[in-house]
Amino acid sequence: MTSFSGIFTGCATASVIALWFAEAGRDIERVQRARSAISVGKLSGAVGTFAHLPPEIEADVCRRLGLEPAAVASQVIQRDRHAEALTALAITGASLEKFALEIRGLQKTEIGEVEEPFAQGQKGSSAMPHKRNPIGCEQVVGLARLLRGNAHAALENVALWHERDISHSSVERVILPDSFIVLDHMLRRFTRIVRGMVVNADRMRENLNRSRGVVFSGTVLLELAKKGVSREQAYEWVQRSAMRSFDEHRDFKALLLSDPEVTRVLSASEVERAFDLDEQLKHVDHIFDRVFHPVRA
Amino acid sequence: MTSFSGIFTGCATASVIALWFAEAGRDIERVQRARSAISVGKLSGAVGTFAHLPPEIEADVCRRLGLEPAAVASQVIQRDRHAEALTALAITGASLEKFALEIRGLQKTEIGEVEEPFAQGQKGSSAMPHKRNPIGCEQVVGLARLLRGNAHAALENVALWHERDISHSSVERVILPDSFIVLDHMLRRFTRIVRGMVVNADRMRENLNRSRGVVFSGTVLLELAKKGVSREQAYEWVQRSAMRSFDEHRDFKALLLSDPEVTRVLSASEVERAFDLDEQLKHVDHIFDRVFHPVRA
Amino acid sequence: MTSFSGIFTGCATASVIALWFAEAGRDIERVQRARSAISVGKLSGAVGTFAHLPPEIEADVCRRLGLEPAAVASQVIQRDRHAEALTALAITGASLEKFALEIRGLQKTEIGEVEEPFAQGQKGSSAMPHKRNPIGCEQVVGLARLLRGNAHAALENVALWHERDISHSSVERVILPDSFIVLDHMLRRFTRIVRGMVVNADRMRENLNRSRGVVFSGTVLLELAKKGVSREQAYEWVQRSAMRSFDEHRDFKALLLSDPEVTRVLSASEVERAFDLDEQLKHVDHIFDRVFHPVRA
Amino acid sequence: MTSFSGIFTGCATASVIALWFAEAGRDIERVQRARSAISVGKLSGAVGTFAHLPPEIEADVCRRLGLEPAAVASQVIQRDRHAEALTALAITGASLEKFALEIRGLQKTEIGEVEEPFAQGQKGSSAMPHKRNPIGCEQVVGLARLLRGNAHAALENVALWHERDISHSSVERVILPDSFIVLDHMLRRFTRIVRGMVVNADRMRENLNRSRGVVFSGTVLLELAKKGVSREQAYEWVQRSAMRSFDEHRDFKALLLSDPEVTRVLSASEVERAFDLDEQLKHVDHIFDRVFHPVRA
Repeated sequence: MTSFSGIFTGCATASVIALWFAEAGRDIERVQRARSAISVGKLSGAVGTFAHLPPEIEADVCRRLGLEPAAVASQVIQRDRHAEALTALAITGASLEKFALEIRGLQKTEIGEVEEPFAQGQKGSSAMPHKRNPIGCEQVVGLARLLRGNAHAALENVALWHERDISHSSVERVILPDSFIVLDHMLRRFTRIVRGMVVNADRMRENLNRSRGVVFSGTVLLELAKKGVSREQAYEWVQRSAMRSFDEHRDFKALLLSDPEVTRVLSASEVERAFDLDEQLKHVDHIFDRVFHPVRA
Repeated sequence: MTSFSGIFTGCATASVIALWFAEAGRDIERVQRARSAISVGKLSGAVGTFAHLPPEIEADVCRRLGLEPAAVASQVIQRDRHAEALTALAITGASLEKFALEIRGLQKTEIGEVEEPFAQGQKGSSAMPHKRNPIGCEQVVGLARLLRGNAHAALENVALWHERDISHSSVERVILPDSFIVLDHMLRRFTRIVRGMVVNADRMRENLNRSRGVVFSGTVLLELAKKGVSREQAYEWVQRSAMRSFDEHRDFKALLLSDPEVTRVLSASEVERAFDLDEQLKHVDHIFDRVFHPVRA
Repeated sequence: MTSFSGIFTGCATASVIALWFAEAGRDIERVQRARSAISVGKLSGAVGTFAHLPPEIEADVCRRLGLEPAAVASQVIQRDRHAEALTALAITGASLEKFALEIRGLQKTEIGEVEEPFAQGQKGSSAMPHKRNPIGCEQVVGLARLLRGNAHAALENVALWHERDISHSSVERVILPDSFIVLDHMLRRFTRIVRGMVVNADRMRENLNRSRGVVFSGTVLLELAKKGVSREQAYEWVQRSAMRSFDEHRDFKALLLSDPEVTRVLSASEVERAFDLDEQLKHVDHIFDRVFHPVRA
Repeated sequence: MTSFSGIFTGCATASVIALWFAEAGRDIERVQRARSAISVGKLSGAVGTFAHLPPEIEADVCRRLGLEPAAVASQVIQRDRHAEALTALAITGASLEKFALEIRGLQKTEIGEVEEPFAQGQKGSSAMPHKRNPIGCEQVVGLARLLRGNAHAALENVALWHERDISHSSVERVILPDSFIVLDHMLRRFTRIVRGMVVNADRMRENLNRSRGVVFSGTVLLELAKKGVSREQAYEWVQRSAMRSFDEHRDFKALLLSDPEVTRVLSASEVERAFDLDEQLKHVDHIFDRVFHPVRA
């Protein structure tokens, strides 16, 4: 579920889903807090002094509406609350943007590890029948920008004259409905995408192998360091073979095993161990436990 | 502590301070939550899999640094956390902007109800020796814009490629220190301003009186409605006298008492009661209790 | 047409209209340039290579539509053009915001120098019949925020993947129509406001006089300096009387004339001359010529 | 110079450089205009009325500084000018962001068509010796966000109270130097990147071939349409083979030639012609002429 773009992330595949899950959890928390921040009401009159209606009426009306009476208000509920709401929506939108960006990156023809669901008979591109564009993810990415622009307007709405001019009113008629509707759409659309997305595990393995083993260079580096080779020295040796592997399309491990300076320090089986994928993945279950079964203090 | 710009806010003076207090409380809460959102660490390697170091080391290092280990990470801590932090700072900045805007408004020569502290011997303006400009408040207002711009950049930093490109790094070298330092400065500066600000209660009363009583028009409107006059009818009667009061510089109450349609419905003492300031302020203590002595459920 | 908020701007009244006029001229120029920046078309195919249609067709279609063919395009017209358009709209919106802010400031009850047009029978506030709120100007001010948010989204739309992903599409369906419609509305609304606004020249003069002459303090300062008094010394003398004028509600000129240090340097008629309004305004016609009858090189 | 991510852009390679060139030209024009927009001065006193200095002095001082006198000013030069400047810088930054984004996309290991210059001995990643990260491009991308945030603050700086409060001052002390310095750095850095970047033409051809010919699907579609096949019908035929090509790793042209419905309409040589790269590129020189040798009217 992640690209192998020049880094060793094969083992991180499942971690990425865990990472999305954890971030979505934080987003939900932020949106819930923001919801409670704006779930307040006031019925205390034009300057908030209850000049014409007693606080009891406010309390009663708010209770019926499921709102909390604002402890103090001017003519209006203060707009720091709505700024919190719209920035929470914008952050959630940015998370979805990140997730969608990942799918777009992995759907590139040359990578091809993940694809948006694509219905039989659907047109990906009117001009190019072969194309399967990640149009859903592109839409999600774009709409995140709209949420940010609206959040900025909400931040500008906070500083009203005398805590109560109504310059925020015209703005909010646009940004409040638009932001909620847009995020709702993004969530529904992205949920459908994740539900139906195609994961090409074979292609992931193939892409990983195309690196000719250089993704394990960090592990080799550490093995050398453990044997007392200075980091600078080890770096130079490893980089030398990695670069040759890239430039000459040769197997990285074979290049290391043919490098006398390396083999003077590491045995063949020690080199071999550095290329063990299971070793890389040994702590993944621990991460999953932390994310999916968190122990609350 | 508030302007009487065409509205009746004389009685709301103290309420405004209560309103600032309540909003500052929400800001503190948001900043504290944001602080905890970014107080996480990771030591799980280049792709977050603990390939070379066990989770125990991460736990130990984080504990020493007062951080919580991130349940899952890629090469980096996810940036929704920092976006939350910088939007929380921006909202706090916007609150300060609102407070400072209020003082600037009240310091205008024609209003003159509140003034920034101005030291003996201080120059308000190099060209105009008579001037006392609210330069501290102007500075606070301006810097809020900087915090918003930085928060927007932080929102754009969330969607990194593969959850871990480092394009956020160059941005954060600027926006993280700048935002914290700028807000710290704003808080210190505005605290000094509030501590030393001059409140001209006489001028407030004078400004209130300059309205010739029209600030009580809402109360008159309600008194008429209580007697069964339709809202539309009552509005017309009250507006008629209010406009004459403005245009002819005459006392609003006297105009009402000379209006036969009004006096057919309201007795002189009923009209009088509508102009009773104490009546307007009778619930202020209740508001103060809600703000300063909230009862937690 | 400007407030006298602690500064001497009585003489600047007409200058402010000139200033608005000059700024509106710059806005028109920016919007016209932006219009031409987006008046381009392309019909060069999915990757911009004219693989299936020759350039002549593009030229012909563009000519009929009043567009210029883009010299080079990918699948789409590049979005720096639309970013220029929406930032031009946002700057124009910010100019209108500034003009509207000025009217709002001058309409405050305590200042009362300018008022939005207010139709007989119009309700300014449902709860407060006496109120005439600058609701048109408040709306214009608010909508400027929306234009800024949209412009920011347009700036984020520039960097498309491979110069042609379609993530901008969803965004532009909202921000393009909204920004043009909103600015059009702001322009129409503000034009009506300026056409019908009430200017209270008497109130301007009254507010000016309420300063008891301190607005001339800068001129007094310069007169002293001309006589060889050091700026620091002169500043101290002038500020001393200005502060007393404020604090003791006394006439500034009288205070100066009773200050032996001042009168040792300036004769009564020299002091008098510093308070001559015509002297202050002597170059206003020159400014008007520069703005309204510019001589092009 | 472009990715082949599921689209046929092989022929567009050079066009992309032309596209960057044309966009850079627009950026230069915008920045030059913005430069002239802010190259104005004023020396007309605290309220812009030349009360104490005649316009001649202003003219003389401005001429010596290479500035144009502002036709009208308040205490300050109006900030729509600086907003134009900072939005012009932000658009330029966004163009650089797009160019850098392209290089980052093409440098992904799986694509490998272009690489940032990477000096012998340079470390791409401290932990992973094999890595060559596009760190220069990542930095350029990130800094574009900073320019956008600053431009937004500049847009908020326009609407000053009375056309001259000084709330913009604190903001501009940060955003003016930062924006100019940051864009200057981005330009220098990106220039070095473009100068030294490695273009792997072989890899481009290889990636193109990996598509098994489906990039020509649009041309096949048009050939069918020319023979009178309805677009819907043709789309279905072409998509059918394109999808099989993807899913079964088979040659697209061979699949078409084995499809009786297709071959009933197109001869083998007509199919062949649809796969002719030269045909696709025949108008590229025309584009180059338009971009690099524009004929001015």
